[in-house]
Amino acid sequence: MKLYWHSLSLIPWRVRIALHEKGIAYDEESVDVYSSIERSPEFLALNPFGQIPVLEDDGLVVAESIAILEYLEERHPEPALMPTDIALRATVRQYMCWSTDYWPPAWKKWMAPHLPGLQSTPESVAEGRGELCMHLDVLDARLEGREWLVEDFSLADVCYAPLVTLLDRVGLADDLADRKHVARWATQLNERPSVKETLLV
Amino acid sequence: MKLYWHSLSLIPWRVRIALHEKGIAYDEESVDVYSSIERSPEFLALNPFGQIPVLEDDGLVVAESIAILEYLEERHPEPALMPTDIALRATVRQYMCWSTDYWPPAWKKWMAPHLPGLQSTPESVAEGRGELCMHLDVLDARLEGREWLVEDFSLADVCYAPLVTLLDRVGLADDLADRKHVARWATQLNERPSVKETLLV
Repeated sequence: MKLYWHSLSLIPWRVRIALHEKGIAYDEESVDVYSSIERSPEFLALNPFGQIPVLEDDGLVVAESIAILEYLEERHPEPALMPTDIALRATVRQYMCWSTDYWPPAWKKWMAPHLPGLQSTPESVAEGRGELCMHLDVLDARLEGREWLVEDFSLADVCYAPLVTLLDRVGLADDLADRKHVARWATQLNERPSVKETLLV
Repeated sequence: MKLYWHSLSLIPWRVRIALHEKGIAYDEESVDVYSSIERSPEFLALNPFGQIPVLEDDGLVVAESIAILEYLEERHPEPALMPTDIALRATVRQYMCWSTDYWPPAWKKWMAPHLPGLQSTPESVAEGRGELCMHLDVLDARLEGREWLVEDFSLADVCYAPLVTLLDRVGLADDLADRKHVARWATQLNERPSVKETLLV
């Protein structure tokens, strides 16, 4: 099994956390998605859209983190990162999608002054922070009275782990502290071996 | 079961197609996502991100089309819209994600002159068309020698049906005809009762 990723990219990190949770051995190959928008013909043959992560396993090539996480869960079901109840599984998937759809655009606006190739204005940076805080409010309401987002630790938590565990290192420590349920959850996430083992920055 | 949607919005349409494929009775409620960015407090209580589709079923409220389609497949497994083989399921999900992640931004650029509230330039419109054509090239290569995207008709085809069956009505008939495998597939999709029954424009 081989994972194509990049250390500065948040979304592939969730796949590494799932691999560590399940104790799956894997190889890694870094794809330089930051220094150039160009991709090698070899990588475009794996994913014509040029994005990471991509997973290769036993002849299968699959892109998109959600598809990869679902694949790992089906191929290596233990330890389970999905509940068995159908309604709870739907809720896990809703949070997987929310973390994928709404966090990265807001994150890019907030981080643009520190990332190569992105433009920003003070207004766009503030807008990004506002969107991240609104997202944190949604999570905070959900996490009140819950240890994890949906019953036991699941792919929903895996998807958010790379996002919320970095907040205090990117100038958003106060915004995190203001949401005490998210702050407690971020601490729990930071303490998981799978998160510690895959932390790079 | 109740689906929140809007007739001008492409993504909820895929959920309606799946409901018709499976013969599931449902109620609908239109959410006016075009005339205002404001949402009612009642709808924001269902989805704090304010987006459609949202499905209500037996106490469950779930947003995000991919989460909803997976839920319908698990709750109403017959007729199956997912293969049983784990690797094929991963490929179905990859196409579900691609249709969700990469088509809508390109579509919005191309359609901006005809949709309320969107800005455009000749360059942005041309860029949108270019991205749609690149996406069609990916699909055309995949569909050569295949009746459907992954083995039998699946959620991968369901996700693309609202996208490709409209091409000849939005000024892209030539781009569709230039990709003969996609054109043949679009004809097959147009002939499915679930697509005909849910067609609104």
